[in-house]
Amino acid sequence: MTSHSFEIPATLKDLPTVSADHQRNGMRHLAAAVTVVTAKDGDMRVGLTATAVSSVTIEPPRMVVMVNKKVAANDIILKTGALCINLLSTEQEHIAKVFAGMIKDVTGAARFEHGTWSEQVTGAPVLEGALASFDCRVVKVMDESSHNGFLCDVLATGELLGGDPLLYAGGAFRRLAPLEA
Amino acid sequence: MTSHSFEIPATLKDLPTVSADHQRNGMRHLAAAVTVVTAKDGDMRVGLTATAVSSVTIEPPRMVVMVNKKVAANDIILKTGALCINLLSTEQEHIAKVFAGMIKDVTGAARFEHGTWSEQVTGAPVLEGALASFDCRVVKVMDESSHNGFLCDVLATGELLGGDPLLYAGGAFRRLAPLEA
Repeated sequence: MTSHSFEIPATLKDLPTVSADHQRNGMRHLAAAVTVVTAKDGDMRVGLTATAVSSVTIEPPRMVVMVNKKVAANDIILKTGALCINLLSTEQEHIAKVFAGMIKDVTGAARFEHGTWSEQVTGAPVLEGALASFDCRVVKVMDESSHNGFLCDVLATGELLGGDPLLYAGGAFRRLAPLEA
Repeated sequence: MTSHSFEIPATLKDLPTVSADHQRNGMRHLAAAVTVVTAKDGDMRVGLTATAVSSVTIEPPRMVVMVNKKVAANDIILKTGALCINLLSTEQEHIAKVFAGMIKDVTGAARFEHGTWSEQVTGAPVLEGALASFDCRVVKVMDESSHNGFLCDVLATGELLGGDPLLYAGGAFRRLAPLEA
């Protein structure tokens, strides 16, 4: 990670931040695409539902995904240096719930009994019917207290023709609509 | 920026990435909330429409926004160490177009003649009627070739009661709808 010689201005350095509760409420307004981020180590497949995913640059084709350090996928991604970002379609709300731990008794490897999975370049699980998939090599890791930010370069993409993105906003799964109601 | 002692695995290090065209097409599928990111240096106000905005952690309340190094706001943010992320509502498509440079002859400071603007803690312009605003102190800068990633801590938030987020996907502005059509 190249950092600029950036220094926080003295006038701002010691100002208090908002509380976690305030920030959690604020983030409810940030509508985001729903993804399942996967990784694989030998026969062990892991994944999590993630919405903190963003483009970094187009050239190189680089993205960033924030992953809670407590989830199993975090360790596997660090170990293998690979992950796949699967953008879910509106048909895949159930998969989002499975990988968010919202379906009782479906944990660990059993999660992959939901959906049909293949592989591209890295071996990280690729979800069939996903709107798009980005099979990635991790190139940098940002250590941010509770989360790691994985910056990764895209080695292969898959795209579905048609399909609508599954979104999450205000604590609920949503879909897109045209702007003119 | 604390980096893990992460090293790219040798098996992945030299694999080719997808082309910029492939990545651009892939990113069209990544639906995202539309924001206007602003900054201010003395009397000079700058801003840009941005969709590469993500939560980093809730505690501390930290976000990241990717900003093209070519835009004026990049320099002002680096200089002042402050920015405001304004999440646009569906009522603010025009503002999104203004700050994306999509409105002919509306450039520079004249952009701020569109919309009503105030300030919170840092002085960065806060858009009235935005769904939410996050007034931030930059704490780290990720130098990523064409873009800077500004990691910032939230010093103040503003929230609109009600309102729907403006989204961008597939090259068009969109809105949310319930999942069950």
